Amino acid sequence: MEELLKLTLLYDFYGELLTEKQKQVYELHYQNDLSLSEIGQELSISRQAVRDQLKRTEKILMDYEEKLSLVERFLEHKEAIRQMKDILDSIEPSEISPVTAKSIAKVKRIADDILS
Amino acid sequence: MEELLKLTLLYDFYGELLTEKQKQVYELHYQNDLSLSEIGQELSISRQAVRDQLKRTEKILMDYEEKLSLVERFLEHKEAIRQMKDILDSIEPSEISPVTAKSIAKVKRIADDILS
Repeated sequence: MEELLKLTLLYDFYGELLTEKQKQVYELHYQNDLSLSEIGQELSISRQAVRDQLKRTEKILMDYEEKLSLVERFLEHKEAIRQMKDILDSIEPSEISPVTAKSIAKVKRIADDILS
Repeated sequence: MEELLKLTLLYDFYGELLTEKQKQVYELHYQNDLSLSEIGQELSISRQAVRDQLKRTEKILMDYEEKLSLVERFLEHKEAIRQMKDILDSIEPSEISPVTAKSIAKVKRIADDILS
């Protein structure tokens, strides 16, 4: 998986276990797109200190996933639901009755809700 | 939800964040069904110490869920998948072609895998 997407998921899952300071630096960088130097100026610390802090935070998030694998489990679920949806999408509308079509549309809506 | 089931889920999700000692006491009680006194004898500590340890462990697990809500999120997914399956179960076999029936059976198998 793309590195940034993975980090975003890790933060989404485990971010609340970080300290306020760690969350602040993470969000300034990854959500508000500030550079390390800009964050350093903002918080009156060196660029290097910001960099160290970020690396530490990323390591903490990865360690949680290493232990718990909850992001992995979640992605497996999503993948399974995507498969379910693909199969339902492959059903020919001409092959099914309006009632069945409605049922299948409902199932697909639930799948979309989870995947969105 | 039933208290023990909830605790089992919490332990399944967050158990790896506990210390070895905490895991040991939790498992002796909730997985091996030992009484507090029996665990006390096993570990040469008082029944009360075992009780305190267990309460502390349960509190730690509940605090993780309070912060992360990952069990809740997981249960919501499962509930949505159960709904998907119920709707598919309600489709009349006589209303669909053999090809469609096969597709739907495949989707239900994936759902069952997640739910099991």
